[in-house]
Amino acid sequence: MTTPGDGSADQVVLALDVGGTHIKAAVMATDGTVVDTADAATGAERGPDAVVENILALAATLTERHRPVAAGVAVPGVVDEGAGICTFAANLGWREVPIQRWVEEELAIPVALGHDVRAGGLAEARLGAGRGCRSFLFVPVGTGIAAAIVLDGRTLLGGHGGAGELGHLVVRSDGEPCGCGNLGCLETLASASAVARRYHRATGERVTAEEVARRAEADDQAAMGVWHDAVDALADGLAATVTLLDPRRVVLGGGLARAGRSLFGPLRTALAARLTFQTLPEVVPAALGHRAGSLGAGLLALDLWQARRGARRPGAAPQLYAVPGQGLRPRGEER
Amino acid sequence: MTTPGDGSADQVVLALDVGGTHIKAAVMATDGTVVDTADAATGAERGPDAVVENILALAATLTERHRPVAAGVAVPGVVDEGAGICTFAANLGWREVPIQRWVEEELAIPVALGHDVRAGGLAEARLGAGRGCRSFLFVPVGTGIAAAIVLDGRTLLGGHGGAGELGHLVVRSDGEPCGCGNLGCLETLASASAVARRYHRATGERVTAEEVARRAEADDQAAMGVWHDAVDALADGLAATVTLLDPRRVVLGGGLARAGRSLFGPLRTALAARLTFQTLPEVVPAALGHRAGSLGAGLLALDLWQARRGARRPGAAPQLYAVPGQGLRPRGEER
Repeated sequence: MTTPGDGSADQVVLALDVGGTHIKAAVMATDGTVVDTADAATGAERGPDAVVENILALAATLTERHRPVAAGVAVPGVVDEGAGICTFAANLGWREVPIQRWVEEELAIPVALGHDVRAGGLAEARLGAGRGCRSFLFVPVGTGIAAAIVLDGRTLLGGHGGAGELGHLVVRSDGEPCGCGNLGCLETLASASAVARRYHRATGERVTAEEVARRAEADDQAAMGVWHDAVDALADGLAATVTLLDPRRVVLGGGLARAGRSLFGPLRTALAARLTFQTLPEVVPAALGHRAGSLGAGLLALDLWQARRGARRPGAAPQLYAVPGQGLRPRGEER
Repeated sequence: MTTPGDGSADQVVLALDVGGTHIKAAVMATDGTVVDTADAATGAERGPDAVVENILALAATLTERHRPVAAGVAVPGVVDEGAGICTFAANLGWREVPIQRWVEEELAIPVALGHDVRAGGLAEARLGAGRGCRSFLFVPVGTGIAAAIVLDGRTLLGGHGGAGELGHLVVRSDGEPCGCGNLGCLETLASASAVARRYHRATGERVTAEEVARRAEADDQAAMGVWHDAVDALADGLAATVTLLDPRRVVLGGGLARAGRSLFGPLRTALAARLTFQTLPEVVPAALGHRAGSLGAGLLALDLWQARRGARRPGAAPQLYAVPGQGLRPRGEER
């Protein structure tokens, strides 16, 4: 990504991935190498303003240390990437937070805003398990389940920034209540939290989803029941998604994917059993782990910086793509 | 679409929409006006070769009469638009039919191949109920149910040309067998054929889906049951699609949409009841009726003709978009 002799090799961008419990920060060189990382608590329990303060404090510390030329911020929830606003994020207590502008004012550098899952999908597309594939889904399965729908290296936004809410496909119409207000959403059975919660309910023991998978392999009956329900529900949700979108590859990440073979073997079988005329996509683990979101935020920052640099170069051709954070069209909808 | 004085005003393209029972042909001027139409039987009951012969015969007749400069052919099934091949079409008995090349050889003009529903979506996008909307679904509900997913004026192909198979979302896991081999696909309850078939089974009477809707309004109990099941199933399928794709508008066409208010009122209510955090899209009738597919085929032909003309003009810039029928990237995947 650098041009020899243009001095960009020394320059870095700042990446922030804001999660429900932690903010993960990375400092990324223009060739994509991560040169520093730092984490901080999100602090959502102290209210929405505390989250903003924690983001700005972490950003300021790293900015002082590394002097980044641009920053990318990935947040969960409903994100209007074009306007730079987080419309709604339950985990952060946010509604209509113009976080892009606030970070920009704090750091005095250009800032790109992205959706955490779509940013993770972008990172998997360019640096991870989606490389070489023009049509794939990135599905992190953690406390919730969402999908980044990546087509031709672009992530699909939807008409209101809400595409990819795979976790809220209703897979059991008579199922458990979901936080969204519906019954039987995929998340209520197959998120890593749901697996842990359902195993706790059955046995009184608190263990991770990965451990539930391990116990299911060791013939623990309660674990087998919970794990089977999760795989079955996930196969139902993916079958619907494959029927509508026909991806070539499904890249699974998050806590559930750490179960490895216990997940991928049964899931591939269950998905294949649900498809008739549809083409079975590859189902593979994500490559970038829990850093996908911050790597994606870094890529958004690099894209923004390179676009602005290009735009400022005298005599350069006008930029043909939208620049996040400049109030132009959202990236996912560029032509 | 014409440039005054360039002589293109007199030129026309040929459009062919190949359905399970009829082939609908249209002759379209470069401004999109239809100047002639003709229909022929598909003749699938006489085998796959007969279908090809009927297409070529109808195309030859209209070509002799109008001297089109290009042709577009829309076919059902799994269509590889880039390669010009219909991979599979159950209704036509086709497997791996290189129909684009065959029509091109017969007519000696450039030919574009398209998928019937995606072509219809393209026509609704440019000429019909999708105008002014950058993110919508075109859903014809006839003998089957499919969706063209239209994003930024492009229709989504999927990784293997199979995106949009809305009719095969499983909405009742214990439901009736579907032709595809699954149980409880949306098509088994909500296609116009399914509504007619289920009413016939309940009452012994053979009437259209539109008539079933009318009788349901008139408190015919059997009709009310069948119609309610259809609307409910369609709302389930659309809710899943909205959750994944977040379209701004859903454009319904086909035989079922002819029921008008009896469909749209209850469907909007049922869809709204299924959404929690998702944004309810507009649900509106298609504007182009049963000619959407042939109009779309005509648009593909016009696009192809204009691209080739542009490419041949001395000193013209290279074409930045793929040209269907030239073996380049499929249209739906251009950048």
